[in-house]
Amino acid sequence: MAHYKLAFLGFGNVGKSFARLLLSKQTELHNLYALTYSITGIATASHGMAVDLDGIDLLRALKANEYQDFCKTTPPTSVEEWIDACEADVLFETTPVNYTTGQPAANYLRAALERGMHAITANKGPVVHAYQELKQIAASQGRYFLFESTVLDGAPIFSLFQRALPAAQLISFQGILNSTTNLILTKMGQGDEFNQAVKYCQNIGIAETDPSGDIDGWDAAVKVAALVTVLMGIPIKPSEVQRQGIRDITGQQVLQAAQEGKRWKLICSGEKQGKSVHAKVQPELVGVESLFYNIMGTSSLIQFRTDVLGQFSIIETDPGPDTTAYGLLSDFIYAVL
Amino acid sequence: MAHYKLAFLGFGNVGKSFARLLLSKQTELHNLYALTYSITGIATASHGMAVDLDGIDLLRALKANEYQDFCKTTPPTSVEEWIDACEADVLFETTPVNYTTGQPAANYLRAALERGMHAITANKGPVVHAYQELKQIAASQGRYFLFESTVLDGAPIFSLFQRALPAAQLISFQGILNSTTNLILTKMGQGDEFNQAVKYCQNIGIAETDPSGDIDGWDAAVKVAALVTVLMGIPIKPSEVQRQGIRDITGQQVLQAAQEGKRWKLICSGEKQGKSVHAKVQPELVGVESLFYNIMGTSSLIQFRTDVLGQFSIIETDPGPDTTAYGLLSDFIYAVL
Repeated sequence: MAHYKLAFLGFGNVGKSFARLLLSKQTELHNLYALTYSITGIATASHGMAVDLDGIDLLRALKANEYQDFCKTTPPTSVEEWIDACEADVLFETTPVNYTTGQPAANYLRAALERGMHAITANKGPVVHAYQELKQIAASQGRYFLFESTVLDGAPIFSLFQRALPAAQLISFQGILNSTTNLILTKMGQGDEFNQAVKYCQNIGIAETDPSGDIDGWDAAVKVAALVTVLMGIPIKPSEVQRQGIRDITGQQVLQAAQEGKRWKLICSGEKQGKSVHAKVQPELVGVESLFYNIMGTSSLIQFRTDVLGQFSIIETDPGPDTTAYGLLSDFIYAVL
Repeated sequence: MAHYKLAFLGFGNVGKSFARLLLSKQTELHNLYALTYSITGIATASHGMAVDLDGIDLLRALKANEYQDFCKTTPPTSVEEWIDACEADVLFETTPVNYTTGQPAANYLRAALERGMHAITANKGPVVHAYQELKQIAASQGRYFLFESTVLDGAPIFSLFQRALPAAQLISFQGILNSTTNLILTKMGQGDEFNQAVKYCQNIGIAETDPSGDIDGWDAAVKVAALVTVLMGIPIKPSEVQRQGIRDITGQQVLQAAQEGKRWKLICSGEKQGKSVHAKVQPELVGVESLFYNIMGTSSLIQFRTDVLGQFSIIETDPGPDTTAYGLLSDFIYAVL
């Protein structure tokens, strides 16, 4: 039986879903993987930081609003201090994404790896801005830097290639990778104007107050950059992805397309061209014979073309914070087994 | 650098495709996996058996029609003798499927495992008729019994669950798993009568002279039984799968469905019900909003519902012997690394 001390950096929707998943899978982890855990730290940006080496009561933490009350000693005054203090074996990072620099998350993940922790994130920023560096530090420490939850939520994409597709070379991919824009386009197909559809997504908590990260294609571009960087081995930045969002698509255009049996989709793609890659995000019209046609609401699709399998696609239907949480669990089990 | 001696039991379309794939991936296996190989045996039912411990020239073997000429000593007189004689580290079994007993393939795989070889097969029969036994022998020998190529050709299904979906419990699945019937229904949608469509599949080498294994749903039922047995941990036989084929579907019915915006598909499914399972194969009408609608020709789709990921689907587009061969390669690398 192996015991692991876990630290949560970020405790929003995804962090809390992961906490609930850990609780519900506790017996299974014990019986199937001979694995127990305790939570020694929780850190948030605006609700304080907790450290308790004896283990924080997760059920209590899930009901709390402030976390410094969980500290048995003086609360840390910075995230770096907190990382030191919680003496964890694994850091789970779920803070908001910074598209342009990946910071400060990348620095926190580096700090965790340098202290000998596994670093697991649901945050795309560090993957596109610091993948090579973090992977190298992890390797030199005999630890893992893992990020399954960053693309298609918790559905296996990176782990699929790394563990179930040996000797497969990725040639190109094409997909619907941003849930918010796909839901906006779906709502517009039901008669909403663009602004109404955006408001709907904000109301159900899918879109941010400033929705530009999604609708201008930044989130999609970061995912494309992550896939190209990790799966094709060609490090590119989001700014190198040719990018067009859905801001200029009108309700009129969507309804017109529907009359012609077509639907607008925000299509992400990457294609190897010699040693470089052509990566882009742009709205496209797809017909009823396309697999993309039936990807509605928050669902996602990605099609891969490899040298050994021809075309191979993965669809995730109606994901949520629970599926993102599963990606973190999957990474955790892989890292420690 | 590790060297492995490989033996091919069966050297038809799939065996030969695998041989070509091994040749084309030779440098990659060497450079990425520090792995070299030689072929010490090839056995066929009607073209003789070859044994050469110094390594058979694969390029020559791919052009040959008879294999006993490759023997440097007296050719073996039975498959068991051949298995002994080729002293392989890995046996690749690609003989024709026996739906009702899995024999004699299951016996050959057992013989290989008992001699300390990894046993890798593209043959569904042994998986549904001898999974528990072969898995146990493999475990007791510290070897692997692997069969990625048996469902959705070489697309990762078993390896996905075993390596990339830890702690995920499969609740149900639904899919189009038989390429021949899907191509027959596709051709009927283009105006063919049932018999014409069957003949087309026979002409292009997809359907057998006796096509009943496909059109009566046996192949699909065996795949369902394999998925239930391995991924749900509930051993069932193909005869326990409620089974209806496509023999009674007329060209008229298919065209009528098309007029209503629908398509006939042979749908396979399995659903856990407590400790048992409800498994079936039957033709169903699907509409334009279904993901099944766009799975045409020889393509396949499988949708999984798990406790952690909601609904998650895999599509393989236009597979062939090359994709089946990749499943064997993927199993090989996993077994020896």
